[in-house]
Amino acid sequence: MSNIEVPYKIYLSEDDVPDSWYNVRADMKNKPAPLLNPGTLQPMKFDELRPVFCDELIKQEFDNDTAYIKIPDEIKNFYMMYRPSPLIHAVFLEKALKTPAHIFYKFEGNNTSGSHKLNSAIAQAYYAKKQGLKGVTTETGAGQWGTALAMACAFFKLDCKVFMVKVSYEQKPFRREVMRTYGATVTPSPSMETEAGRKINEAHPGTTGSLGCAISEAVECAIKSEGYRYVLGSVLNQVLLHQSVIGLETKKACEKYNIQPDIIIGCAGGGSNLGGLISPFMGEKLRGEKDYKFIAVEPASCPSFTRGKFVYDFCDTGKICPMAKMYTLGHDFIPSANHAGGLRYHGMSSILSQLYHDGFMEARSVEQTKVFEAAEQFARTEGILPAPESSHAIRVAIDEAIKCRETGEEKTIIFGLTGTGYFDMKAYEQFNDKTMSDHIPTDEELQKGFASIPNVN
Amino acid sequence: MSNIEVPYKIYLSEDDVPDSWYNVRADMKNKPAPLLNPGTLQPMKFDELRPVFCDELIKQEFDNDTAYIKIPDEIKNFYMMYRPSPLIHAVFLEKALKTPAHIFYKFEGNNTSGSHKLNSAIAQAYYAKKQGLKGVTTETGAGQWGTALAMACAFFKLDCKVFMVKVSYEQKPFRREVMRTYGATVTPSPSMETEAGRKINEAHPGTTGSLGCAISEAVECAIKSEGYRYVLGSVLNQVLLHQSVIGLETKKACEKYNIQPDIIIGCAGGGSNLGGLISPFMGEKLRGEKDYKFIAVEPASCPSFTRGKFVYDFCDTGKICPMAKMYTLGHDFIPSANHAGGLRYHGMSSILSQLYHDGFMEARSVEQTKVFEAAEQFARTEGILPAPESSHAIRVAIDEAIKCRETGEEKTIIFGLTGTGYFDMKAYEQFNDKTMSDHIPTDEELQKGFASIPNVN
Repeated sequence: MSNIEVPYKIYLSEDDVPDSWYNVRADMKNKPAPLLNPGTLQPMKFDELRPVFCDELIKQEFDNDTAYIKIPDEIKNFYMMYRPSPLIHAVFLEKALKTPAHIFYKFEGNNTSGSHKLNSAIAQAYYAKKQGLKGVTTETGAGQWGTALAMACAFFKLDCKVFMVKVSYEQKPFRREVMRTYGATVTPSPSMETEAGRKINEAHPGTTGSLGCAISEAVECAIKSEGYRYVLGSVLNQVLLHQSVIGLETKKACEKYNIQPDIIIGCAGGGSNLGGLISPFMGEKLRGEKDYKFIAVEPASCPSFTRGKFVYDFCDTGKICPMAKMYTLGHDFIPSANHAGGLRYHGMSSILSQLYHDGFMEARSVEQTKVFEAAEQFARTEGILPAPESSHAIRVAIDEAIKCRETGEEKTIIFGLTGTGYFDMKAYEQFNDKTMSDHIPTDEELQKGFASIPNVN
Repeated sequence: MSNIEVPYKIYLSEDDVPDSWYNVRADMKNKPAPLLNPGTLQPMKFDELRPVFCDELIKQEFDNDTAYIKIPDEIKNFYMMYRPSPLIHAVFLEKALKTPAHIFYKFEGNNTSGSHKLNSAIAQAYYAKKQGLKGVTTETGAGQWGTALAMACAFFKLDCKVFMVKVSYEQKPFRREVMRTYGATVTPSPSMETEAGRKINEAHPGTTGSLGCAISEAVECAIKSEGYRYVLGSVLNQVLLHQSVIGLETKKACEKYNIQPDIIIGCAGGGSNLGGLISPFMGEKLRGEKDYKFIAVEPASCPSFTRGKFVYDFCDTGKICPMAKMYTLGHDFIPSANHAGGLRYHGMSSILSQLYHDGFMEARSVEQTKVFEAAEQFARTEGILPAPESSHAIRVAIDEAIKCRETGEEKTIIFGLTGTGYFDMKAYEQFNDKTMSDHIPTDEELQKGFASIPNVN
């Protein structure tokens, strides 16, 4: 056996958990486009959003100028339960790849929600509680957001209603039980409990659901229930704000240990993890202080960045929500049922969309069998069983490290390991059994989705 | 909302991972009784055990005298992937219980195996690799040990054959997939692949299996396969030795932060976690330096300590293994099928059995619905979803903290949170659905188990 170097696991001290979130919008010259009222086509006003969102969160959603927003003590105290999260030097993976590259990953899976989603869930639950609400509604795809929100609501003793994309509900029965254990009620979507759900069930009998549809149901449920608001785990500006703790800690660890990242990689569904991870580094790039290569990785079966359009679209299938300007496949787009992991959303964070549009970041799409190959290799070398979503980032990190092997470059690569795959074993089973397949939407399939984009652009 | 104190999460530095394991036997006046050859009734000799165990591990098994045994670099390097594990101050649980007690837990679930089992798995895999073996066989009950071993074998590129207790195999299909992802083969036990399995299937058609039976199969498979040895995740002296890293780190954290534990609590199936956690503290007690109250917690449905006999018994149902002197319910004892969690073993570590017999520790048995009540309360307050096994310790920690509330005593309680419950959602589902029930074996049921104890005592 060869001598193995001592791995390098950077746990910052609790004092290093940031006191403020960083709002990358403050440093963007081209601000993300505002949400539009689909009726008037005018930017949504504070009062128009109040039936849907908590007041404080609307303020954060609108705030394009404040660079640092203080994290309330109650939220920071909760963060202390599982933060700072470690930045891990992937020495075993480097060895396996025989690469001169230096690979690090920020591991956000060391909490019961199993992902970074908790960073925003606890913030949103806190503001709901502070506003005196009874509860919140939400949707969940892969189930990580729902679990995170259920935990956060249990902590603040808020009621929690989760609409779970039907395909995940069926593939991940244990996710449902985790949420129930934390006191949440979980409904498969599309359901018959909302108008939006009933409409979609009628139009697409037997549909396995989509995030866009579950959003419609959750929003409708919030609006129609007294003392409830809707909360969302990705896409929104406020979510990227809360997730900036990932990047702030990563940056602090880099500074502490003199790590100079060249490439920063994150998976991208709605953009919450990627946006959070890259925010403070992006700030430096926007201010012209430093340069980094940012890579968003998305599934080839749901390629919003790489094949979508940068236009105003509805955030949800039921067209209940405001319209956002973003890279989108059209709100009627539903990824192929053979797509196993999360990252199923038709659109993308407005902030990231603007940054991508302005050339500040790149995007790649990857096929799922290749993603699971990377996941298996990572699990067997680094020990951690990654979530399929996170494994998109692993795939591209490995690809970049192999390139370094070929060129001899000693690049430093950081990627976000957003979560663990304990609840994704059905997908792993398909991979282990070699029954997993890929699906790249044809241009015709994409056209069908694009056809649903409203004619306001 | 009330002001919450900042939680207290003690991450030691990587330098604090111990360099040596601590062997509590060195400080025991009454050594644990030796393993017996069931044919000759004489203590097993090194050569007799060689077909079953790796050489170095046999030495560790026999060594009653060396207090500190150096951890090989390769093992210590692997430990660095997930150790030191945090000692967490349960401030939120204390608040919820309104107790003056100080509660801490050593959390061993922050690795993909989801439990402390990895501490010994990597050691055993290392010694097997060093001996030039092809692979190892083992059994797994709840699945944590099998997962840990699969991870360890993937790391050292060893073949890994796991016999999984049938009830767990069926209740935890996802565990199987984790093991497969790490490259292991998993067979439900009793199987038809071994003589031992076929015999048990014949004698008890439809049996849901037991650890004792799976052990027989794994041992037989190792003996009959060239280049294979058997490894075990609990009970044995060597395992408690490896698990002492838990206690050594806990003790270091206590010393660093001036925490003076009064009560130390661990769940007990075969004794690996409890033995590892208490070892260095027990050493102080044995040497007369300090006093602690140690509490072993076991399920009422499998009460080896509290209702078993301290006698020589077979370690496995098939009577292939040597006999050990231990608290046992008889090797034919199989816990009621309604028992959901792990801790299903009929016997108990010889070391812990001797210490219990000599009055150095206490034991309690708890019913599973009460255990899951504690688990739910813990999850909702502390955030972490605990394994059912670990929740036995939580139950008694909560009970002791409530006693402190009644007496006003400010006791310091430490318990071992051995792992997470992500793969135990079937059991949580029963609890959530209120279909979970308890089973306390009747005296008649126990007598049936006792009847299988060999007449050598």
